[in-house]
Amino acid sequence: MAMDVRSMARQARAAQRRLELTTTEERNAALEAIARALEAHAERIVAANAADLAAAEEAGLSGPMIARLRLDEAKLAGVIRGVRAVAELPDPLAAEPEAWVRPNGLRIQRVRVPLGVIGIIYESRPGVTVDAAVLCLKAGNAVLLKGGKEAARSNAALGEAMAAGLRDAGLPVELAQVLPSSREAAAELMAAHGLVDVLIPRGGAGLIRATVEQSRVPVIETGTGVCHVYVHAAADLGMAREIVLNAKLSNPAVCNAAETLLVDREVAGRFLADVGPALLAAGVRLRACPEALALLAEAGVGASAGAGAGAGVGVRAGVGAGEGAAAGAAVEPAREDDWAAEYLGLTLAVKVVAGLDEALAHIARYGTGHSEAIVTADAAVADRFLRSVDAATVYHNASTRFTDGGEFGFGAEIGISTQKLHARGPMGLAELTTYKYVVLGSGQVR
Amino acid sequence: MAMDVRSMARQARAAQRRLELTTTEERNAALEAIARALEAHAERIVAANAADLAAAEEAGLSGPMIARLRLDEAKLAGVIRGVRAVAELPDPLAAEPEAWVRPNGLRIQRVRVPLGVIGIIYESRPGVTVDAAVLCLKAGNAVLLKGGKEAARSNAALGEAMAAGLRDAGLPVELAQVLPSSREAAAELMAAHGLVDVLIPRGGAGLIRATVEQSRVPVIETGTGVCHVYVHAAADLGMAREIVLNAKLSNPAVCNAAETLLVDREVAGRFLADVGPALLAAGVRLRACPEALALLAEAGVGASAGAGAGAGVGVRAGVGAGEGAAAGAAVEPAREDDWAAEYLGLTLAVKVVAGLDEALAHIARYGTGHSEAIVTADAAVADRFLRSVDAATVYHNASTRFTDGGEFGFGAEIGISTQKLHARGPMGLAELTTYKYVVLGSGQVR
Repeated sequence: MAMDVRSMARQARAAQRRLELTTTEERNAALEAIARALEAHAERIVAANAADLAAAEEAGLSGPMIARLRLDEAKLAGVIRGVRAVAELPDPLAAEPEAWVRPNGLRIQRVRVPLGVIGIIYESRPGVTVDAAVLCLKAGNAVLLKGGKEAARSNAALGEAMAAGLRDAGLPVELAQVLPSSREAAAELMAAHGLVDVLIPRGGAGLIRATVEQSRVPVIETGTGVCHVYVHAAADLGMAREIVLNAKLSNPAVCNAAETLLVDREVAGRFLADVGPALLAAGVRLRACPEALALLAEAGVGASAGAGAGAGVGVRAGVGAGEGAAAGAAVEPAREDDWAAEYLGLTLAVKVVAGLDEALAHIARYGTGHSEAIVTADAAVADRFLRSVDAATVYHNASTRFTDGGEFGFGAEIGISTQKLHARGPMGLAELTTYKYVVLGSGQVR
Repeated sequence: MAMDVRSMARQARAAQRRLELTTTEERNAALEAIARALEAHAERIVAANAADLAAAEEAGLSGPMIARLRLDEAKLAGVIRGVRAVAELPDPLAAEPEAWVRPNGLRIQRVRVPLGVIGIIYESRPGVTVDAAVLCLKAGNAVLLKGGKEAARSNAALGEAMAAGLRDAGLPVELAQVLPSSREAAAELMAAHGLVDVLIPRGGAGLIRATVEQSRVPVIETGTGVCHVYVHAAADLGMAREIVLNAKLSNPAVCNAAETLLVDREVAGRFLADVGPALLAAGVRLRACPEALALLAEAGVGASAGAGAGAGVGVRAGVGAGEGAAAGAAVEPAREDDWAAEYLGLTLAVKVVAGLDEALAHIARYGTGHSEAIVTADAAVADRFLRSVDAATVYHNASTRFTDGGEFGFGAEIGISTQKLHARGPMGLAELTTYKYVVLGSGQVR
């Protein structure tokens, strides 16, 4: 790559100032031009992706990683539909500004404006290149896209298509730039304080941690979810069963899936005897506290033979030893690290608690501030839970799986924030803007 | 100090969860209890400050630093009045939440909540200890206060008084903790990701840069202001004169003071001949571009004798050489670094520009995103300026000095943000809160 990231960021800034002055219609037309260019470039994009896939297979990447990397014709068509869907969404910059007049006659307006230049750091899914770019553009921002090495050919082809679309729309191609996929480019991006207004990392916990640690550009942390479902003594246990199964099973690989079940002692025996077999039948492994373990054993859950309590319940192997065998056991004792684990798969930690206070303390200690749910028919208990839990989204009698821009009615999302500055929870177009104060005077001095 | 910062932050978190559940009245009562405790502790506080002042004088601290450090009875009374004024302000947590119902029946509420634990890193002014703490508490936050070494005794005494007030109000003293004044404490605070929700540095550019570079906790950058007043060709030059004099002179030491005057070529000769002598008479040194320099000389501004162009205009000494003598000259050639300088004193950079485009480009390059003003009678030009300048506050026909929480009607401010995430410009109580989503269901699954 001939150009360094700082120069690209500087060009992005200049281009963004131009975009900021466009109308809603001009920005929507640019998205339509990008959709058409992606259609025109489809063959090249799919071929570039095939080359990435071949290299990934040769390098021995895992099955799920290769699945994320794949961008075939059907998937690309979905990406293009997404571009047009974003064009249809309301313009977040069109909101009427708040305004007030001071006693000295100054008129103060709080006006919605783009964030400016947004950096996205992400991993293998090449679709993110387009999804993220069009959301940023719609809200008037320039975007710098730093994708994964394994998707470099796909991302470059997508970037060329988007540039063609921007050119067709009469806008600077520097509005959406695919950066080199090197570590150096990521480091330069994170050091570009003053040139890049915000970084949004999208990916695994490791990527997000590294970005927070290294970046001098403000970061919005997204998507680490150790989410709990708490089944209170006064829960409708049938409803609780459906919510737990949905929160764990409907898409175990995503951040809003449940990782830990908390259940009140008063109903734990009955509830675990009911939900336990259903979870196991769906292939879920349970990591249970001693009390839950005993209750599950008592109910015969996870028992390979009916030889009484303890039989069939796996004895958990030590760290690093016999993990393969341990992973096979359906019910095992939880270790301390299970309470903090984001499994992103078919494992669920289970803990019996004395009541609301212990549940709140557990969530305060191990939760990641993403999504937390209580199931109860007691309104006062629900109210205390909803007020006390410090998370982006708290649920009463619903699955944690609803934490999603689409489900919230935002039309799209750039990520789910788990920090408290600027935006929390699903981030739609409004969260890709900020404001400025416009002050109109007639010669006022102080 | 027996306790490390991480433990203090953990206690602050636990205490904050308790504060979050208090009513507006309980929080206001706590502020009144703090005001009374500060009154009761006044003698001890002033004595501690006297000890800090004596040590500072012995250490040879500068006059302005010692002035900032001073907290005598009269200043303390002002601080206490400030506490009661914050108690009178509306509760930012009382705002009615936005709410909507999804087609599946889920009711989504966006509820205002405190940020959580806020860290303040500041320098010599001990009054900040109380000002910042009560704003944080009013908005339901716990606060960790890391002040300067030179104010350690004053801050400890203020912290004890606030603790006494919190105790009287039946609230945990860990809600407002004065940290050790060591560098190590600052480093621990900046590393306390996950325990501290946001850091707000208040102080000089060096402090803010160091915090941005080192912190893993999200930072709100505040208060670096290279602010411009741009006098457009169509300006009322009388109004422009008043605005320039006010923006430079009414309080040169603060971040919203003007540091650079941009003036259109068309009116530069007339305007500089008028405003130049007024600035010089007030003791302002001008650092002028070659064209402004010539115009000032032509008008005899800064000329010690009437010996024609160039006479009396100082020849600027090279870097590091003869600074003492150079500082004495009233009008000098600007160097490149003058355009980026935040003088915070009686110096003003002056540049002649061809028109709006050059002014916009100059501000885009050298501005710090704080406050920028245009003086013009041309509404279309004003509109382009207000839309194009990327700063927290943009002014038409008013002084930059109005960028202030009090002047904006916020009642108080914790700082002036120059970044774009979360808050921009003057930050009042609302900016010390965030939101969470409360989702009410009846068993919905996805």
